[in-house]
Amino acid sequence: MSSEYLREGERLDDLQRSHYRIIQHPGKFCFGMDAVLLSGFATVRPGERVLDLGTGTGIIPLLLAAKTQGAHFTGLEIQEEMAEMAGRSVRLNGLEARVEIVTGDLREASRRFGGASFDVVTCNPPYIPAGHGRKNPSEPMAIARHEIRCSLEDVAREASRCLRPGGRLALVHRPHRLAEIFSVLGRYRLQPKRMKLVHPLADREANLVLLECALGGGVWLQVEKPLIVYREPGVYSQEIYDIYGY
Amino acid sequence: MSSEYLREGERLDDLQRSHYRIIQHPGKFCFGMDAVLLSGFATVRPGERVLDLGTGTGIIPLLLAAKTQGAHFTGLEIQEEMAEMAGRSVRLNGLEARVEIVTGDLREASRRFGGASFDVVTCNPPYIPAGHGRKNPSEPMAIARHEIRCSLEDVAREASRCLRPGGRLALVHRPHRLAEIFSVLGRYRLQPKRMKLVHPLADREANLVLLECALGGGVWLQVEKPLIVYREPGVYSQEIYDIYGY
Repeated sequence: MSSEYLREGERLDDLQRSHYRIIQHPGKFCFGMDAVLLSGFATVRPGERVLDLGTGTGIIPLLLAAKTQGAHFTGLEIQEEMAEMAGRSVRLNGLEARVEIVTGDLREASRRFGGASFDVVTCNPPYIPAGHGRKNPSEPMAIARHEIRCSLEDVAREASRCLRPGGRLALVHRPHRLAEIFSVLGRYRLQPKRMKLVHPLADREANLVLLECALGGGVWLQVEKPLIVYREPGVYSQEIYDIYGY
Repeated sequence: MSSEYLREGERLDDLQRSHYRIIQHPGKFCFGMDAVLLSGFATVRPGERVLDLGTGTGIIPLLLAAKTQGAHFTGLEIQEEMAEMAGRSVRLNGLEARVEIVTGDLREASRRFGGASFDVVTCNPPYIPAGHGRKNPSEPMAIARHEIRCSLEDVAREASRCLRPGGRLALVHRPHRLAEIFSVLGRYRLQPKRMKLVHPLADREANLVLLECALGGGVWLQVEKPLIVYREPGVYSQEIYDIYGY
C-alpha cells in the first residue's frame, strides 16, 4: 500500500500523531529528538503560515501540521533527493493542501517567498561551525550537522526578512553557543522571548536550547522550566512522552 | 560582647560558615538569597584577589572569605552608612587582614584600584532599569534594586577594566534581561563561560541567573544543571542546604 511511496533503503516511521507517517533513509539522515522538541516548543496559532528552513525529511512541518491548526506549512530544503523524499511523505499523508516542500537554498528564502510572508519561521539548523570538528563522510549528514550550506547568520537574516512584524522564529541549537546566538539574532531584530533548556538528566548540563524570538519584540525573556529528557538513565520523563505523543 | 559593634536598629546574623556573623539593618537593606547563591557559584582559586562591586552589607566578601582560599577581598560600596556597617562586620569577625571595605562609586572602580588589578570581580547589581516599576521609598533599598547609582553597563565596563586578562566576573541577575546582559558583557569582552538558572520549583520558570564570564575568553558556554530552590513548596532542596551550609 505504502510501497509505491518507498524507494530502496528507505523506511517508514509512525509519528504517533494523527496517524501520520514519515519516510526516512537511515543511510542518509534521520531526524533527531531536537526536531521533535522544537515542534513541541514552537507556538503556531490557528490560521498562521509557517516556514521551516532546512526541513530535511519534512519532520517539523509534518509534526506541526498534526499538532497545530496552522493554515499552511512550507518546508525549504536545499538537497534535491531529501526534498523529493519529504514531498513523498507529504503525499503519503494526504497533506498536499497544507504542507508544501520546496527545493531551494535557505539563503535565498526571502527572495523566493517575498518579505514579511510568514507568521512563524522554524529552524533546526546545523550546530557546528564549518571547519570545526570532524566532518561526516556522508554528504547529507555533514550538511545537517556542519554550517556548510548555511550559517547561523544566514538563518537569522532570512527569518528576519521572511517574518511579518511581530512574527516568531522558533530555533533549536546548542547552549554552548548561546552568547553568539543572542548576538546574531539581535543584529536582525529577533528578540528572544521564550527559552527552554534541555538537560539529558536533572543533574547534567544542558545540551540543547529551544528559543522563540519575536521580530521587533520588546525586551523580556521568559526562561521556562527546564526540560529533563530522562527521569533516570534509560527512562524518559513524562514531558518527553507527552511531546512524542505516546 | 558583640554589642560594641551594633548600632540601634541593627541585628546580628550567623552566616553558618566559619562561625562568621554579619550586621544588618532590617529597615535599610538585608542581603537576599541571590547574594548567597552567587557566593556559592563564583569560582575563587587559592591566592586570588577579589573585588565585589556594590557590596552592601559585605555579605559576598564575607561568605567568599569563609568558603574559599582567596588571598584578599575588597568590597566597594557607595553608601557611606552601609560601608561603615560592613566594615564593622569585617572587624567583628577579625577579618581585617583578608577583607577590606572601601567607600566609593563603582563607576570609578578601575580609576581607584587600577586596571587589571583583580583575578575575580563579583557583583549582585540592581536588577531593574531606572525609571521602571515602583521605586522603594527607602533610599538604600531603592539603590539596591533600581539602576539609580549604576547601570549594567557600568558594572561590565568596570569589571572589564579591573580584571586581569582571563580574569572572571561572577554576576547574578534576572533571566528576563539575559539577551541584553550577554550583549553588554560582549561589548566589554566578557565572554560567558558558565551559566546556572535558578528556578523556585522544578516546574516554574527561572527567576535568577548566575553567570561567570572570562575576560577575553573563548566562545564556549557551559549551562550547568538548573538550581531548584524548593523541593516542594516550603521545603528547600538539598542544593540550597549545601550552599547555605546547614
